[in-house]
This record gives sequence, C-alpha cells and structure tokens, in this order.
Amino acid sequence: MTLKVSDVGEKELVRYIIANSKDITPDDTAITNFNDTNLISTCDMLIQSRHFPDNMSYFDMGFKSVTVNVSDLAAMGAEPLGFLLSIAIPKDLDVDSFKQVIDGVLKACEYYEIPLIGGDTNEASEIIINGTALGTSDNPLMKDTYNKGDLIAITGEIGFAALGFEIETLNNIYTKKALKPLARIKEGLILKDYATSATDITDGLASELYTIKKDGFGFMIYEEMLGITGNYKSTAEKLNLNYLDLILHVGEDFELLFTISKDNLEKLPIDCIVIGEVTGSDVVELTLENGFVERIKNEGYEHYVS
Amino acid sequence: MTLKVSDVGEKELVRYIIANSKDITPDDTAITNFNDTNLISTCDMLIQSRHFPDNMSYFDMGFKSVTVNVSDLAAMGAEPLGFLLSIAIPKDLDVDSFKQVIDGVLKACEYYEIPLIGGDTNEASEIIINGTALGTSDNPLMKDTYNKGDLIAITGEIGFAALGFEIETLNNIYTKKALKPLARIKEGLILKDYATSATDITDGLASELYTIKKDGFGFMIYEEMLGITGNYKSTAEKLNLNYLDLILHVGEDFELLFTISKDNLEKLPIDCIVIGEVTGSDVVELTLENGFVERIKNEGYEHYVS
Repeated sequence: MTLKVSDVGEKELVRYIIANSKDITPDDTAITNFNDTNLISTCDMLIQSRHFPDNMSYFDMGFKSVTVNVSDLAAMGAEPLGFLLSIAIPKDLDVDSFKQVIDGVLKACEYYEIPLIGGDTNEASEIIINGTALGTSDNPLMKDTYNKGDLIAITGEIGFAALGFEIETLNNIYTKKALKPLARIKEGLILKDYATSATDITDGLASELYTIKKDGFGFMIYEEMLGITGNYKSTAEKLNLNYLDLILHVGEDFELLFTISKDNLEKLPIDCIVIGEVTGSDVVELTLENGFVERIKNEGYEHYVS
Repeated sequence: MTLKVSDVGEKELVRYIIANSKDITPDDTAITNFNDTNLISTCDMLIQSRHFPDNMSYFDMGFKSVTVNVSDLAAMGAEPLGFLLSIAIPKDLDVDSFKQVIDGVLKACEYYEIPLIGGDTNEASEIIINGTALGTSDNPLMKDTYNKGDLIAITGEIGFAALGFEIETLNNIYTKKALKPLARIKEGLILKDYATSATDITDGLASELYTIKKDGFGFMIYEEMLGITGNYKSTAEKLNLNYLDLILHVGEDFELLFTISKDNLEKLPIDCIVIGEVTGSDVVELTLENGFVERIKNEGYEHYVS
C-alpha cells in the first residue's frame, strides 16, 4: 500500500524537511545572521476555501494575509522591515474585489508599519495569498528559552476567534476577532526586553504549549485565570460546543504566548493575562475551576488530517 | 457590466498595486537598504496545473521552484542569503511524491548555494509552491541603466524551453531545458562588475525588452545573432509552430538578458551571445536574416488573458 500524506499528517512532513535541512531554525521564523544583526524572515500561505470563512470580506482577506505573517515577527520581538505579496486569483474575479484584497493588504501594511516592497501575481481557481514578512532583531525572542518558575502569560483573551468561526451573525466580539485578528507587533517589541520566551497562538494554546515544551519542563495552566466569561460559556453551549475545546484546541487568535519572571512581570509596561507557570513536571496540565487537574491533550489545527 | 480580471489583464492589476505602494522597486526584486548594504528579496508562486508540464517529475517541480526565484537574484547580481519554501499539497498525494518535491528543493538549494531557512506547509487541491529568495548586493544590477550604443547580450540560447514544452519525448535538449532550467546565479555575480543592466528572461525576449525599455531608447535585435540552428527551425516547423514566435514570445529560459559596453564585453570572463544593440530609435526592432527590419510585438506570457 502506498502511504498518502493524510496517513502521516503535517507534522511528519515538516519533520522530513527539517531533518534534511540543517539551516532551518526550529522557531516561529528563520533567523539569518547579517551584518551584526539578524534578518528575521517568515512566510505563510492562505487559501480561500481553507483559511477564509465564507462571510469574510475581500478587504479582510488581504488584511489577514499580512497579520498572520507579521504575527510571527511579533513572536520574535522583531522590527518590521518589509512585506512581499504573492497573490493568485481566478480570472473571472471582479476587478473591484481584487482591488479590495489589495486595499486590505495595504491597510494592514500601514497599520503594522511594514512597507509592501514586492510580490508576484498569478492565476488560480481560487484566491491564494502567500505573504513573506521580513524583519530585524539584535536579540530574537526564542520560543523555548524559559526557566522553571517563570509565569506563563498571553497578550489578550484567547478562544474568541474559535467561537467566532461558529457564529453566523457578524456584529459580535467573537466574529470580529475571527474575521479581523490583529498581530501583536508592538507588544512583541516590548516583550523582547522583559519576557524569557514567546510564540504566537495560531494553532491553539494546547498545540503551542506542546510546540515550546522542552524535556524536563512542564506547564500548569489555571482555568480560572483564562478569563472565560459566562457569556462565552453560554454562547458555546448554545452551539453545542465545549468551551474548553474552543479555547485550547483551535487557535487563530494571534495573541502572543510568553513566559516571564515574576520580577519582570511587575515592570512590564503592557497589559497581559497570566494563565499559569512553568513547572518541572514534564507534562502539560490544566487546573480546572473545580480544582481537579487534568492533562491537556496535544491537539490543535493540523493540515491533511480530516 | 462588472469588469472581470480577464478583461483588464495582469499588467493592469500590477499597475494598481504599484500605484498604491510607494515602497515597491520596479525591478526584478525588492531592494531594501539594510546596514550599509541592500537586502534583495523576491517571491514567485508556481501552481501545478499552470506551471508544471504533465511530464515533469516531482523532483523537477521542487527544483524549478527554487530556480525561478534564484533567477531574480541572479538578475540583480545578488549573493544568495536564504530561501523560504511555502508548499501546499493535496492530502491524497503519496508521501514519496512529497519527499521527491522536497528533495528537488534541497538539491536546488545546494546547487545554488542558498540555504533553505524556513517555510510553511499547507493543504490544497493541487501542488502550489511559493518560494522566497533572499540575497544581498552592495550595488544591485538594475534592469534599465543601459546607455545608447551598449551591446545587448544573453547568457545562453533562448527559445529552447518554449520548444521543449511542445515536445512529448523527454530525451532532447529542448525538453531538458523546459523541465529543468537553471538560473544564472554565478553569471549574475560576474555581470554586476561588467554589465550596465540586466534582467532574467521569464516571459520571453520581447516582453523583457519592452519591460526594460526607457523613453527615447530603442533596441535592435539581429535574427542571425540569435544562434537559431537548422534543427531548431525544422523541429518547430514539424510542430506547425513559428520559430521566431517561440524565441521572442514564450520565455521560461531563465537566461540573463544584459547590456554591456563594447570595451567591457572584451574583458567579460564568461561566455555570452551578443544579439543586438541599444539604439536611440525609441522602438524595439528585429533585423531578419533576409535583411528586412520589423517591429517586435509586445507580446509575452500574461496571466488571466486566455
């Protein structure tokens, strides 16, 4: 029997690439030493039928294609340098719709203060956008350089986008987050001087915790610190969804997940939500509101596995 | 009536992007001033059904995705710095086929001495590869900095790939060029010290000449200098194709098209084919083998227009 991509999953494929290329940095972005500093580079491809909800506007598609890439720069504490846009569109797309996508890209570049410096146009059967974000950093903020006893924090509420994807109506905080997430580029630039490590939450809190986990280190997350409101729980319940699954295993929030010493937390000049701590347990755990402790499953968004 | 993308064509769309973004360099790549040198960056998306001939191997698909991007670095005379790979594949693709694509990418990176530094994996209904090539250059070789009287030259025969795409059999020089073109990265690094301008030939000689044309300058190309063999002409004739159309209006050769002073041509330490000269005529012309002179049409590969 021939093994298909769906039999092995995305992580196995990525493992094959990394095992065969000694120059890949296993972090949020590539890091290339360059004239006494580091060039930070990252790329992300978004495909209409898979990454853009049906109710997303063309403008928001363009905006999001910048956000997902800038978010990786933010996770490194990098200063934005430039953005490259590769875009493929169907030939029967309205010119106005194309212009709205481009306007979304340009608005996002302006918002994140990252100049659009180049790109490529192409034809495809649906909209495909590949962004490349370039940045610089003297001291890139790595994802696994934390210490035991560090606090674990996030730059804003998580799970909003996950819930928003399930809601049809547009005018609520959850859908807004799903359709127009914002990258935490300014927060990343501050965190690089205070945090011990950082990554961005794209595939869900659980998935990111397992991605940053080192041997001999563990994480304890406290449900009561996640700031889950009654409204969040009841909205999820009405949709027959488990609110903890939404918060732990979906992602697309683009908040930064970072670790910080207790001393530095007091000095940190930005708002954040402390959600747990780095332990020596070697496991990833959740203390529920009722006091019970359970393992968090290593489940998040993964391509090819349906 | 709503205007569709196919009504206006690719060049009009690119014009909209460039008109709205002051930071785009209108050349083969982006150029970003960076710590006393220039970061050179470029991206190109290849889509299986549109860019890869049916008889192309998975390995060659991967190889070509690096070549098309490195070719733009070559056109700037840039030193390779790093390559980012965004790849989307169908979930029913064989794992072995995926690995062959990656092996092609890795082999090309080794061949061009450009490290694979990062990337992204995705799911799509066909193979889509977006490459980003990064490089450096103290003095980027621009595409339109030529002078009247400069000679026009290319780094190797053109039109081979165009003919190769039309041939079913694999074992001939034309098909080889169509399936595995090579970027002229080493030649670009030498040309930056001798040439007055350069670009790479992707959309055909005619299209590139019109792309680099400045007001008040023209080009005279000589058919007899294009090195068209009897075998080339007879192969085209058997396929009912016009050999000059193949050479002028198809592309995919990835040879460099450059201009050079007569003095520097004598000193140039690499082989090249001189095909014409920069004139003050303000038109793009071809002197046929029979002595007649005709205008070259501004036609080349363009997306959306079928």
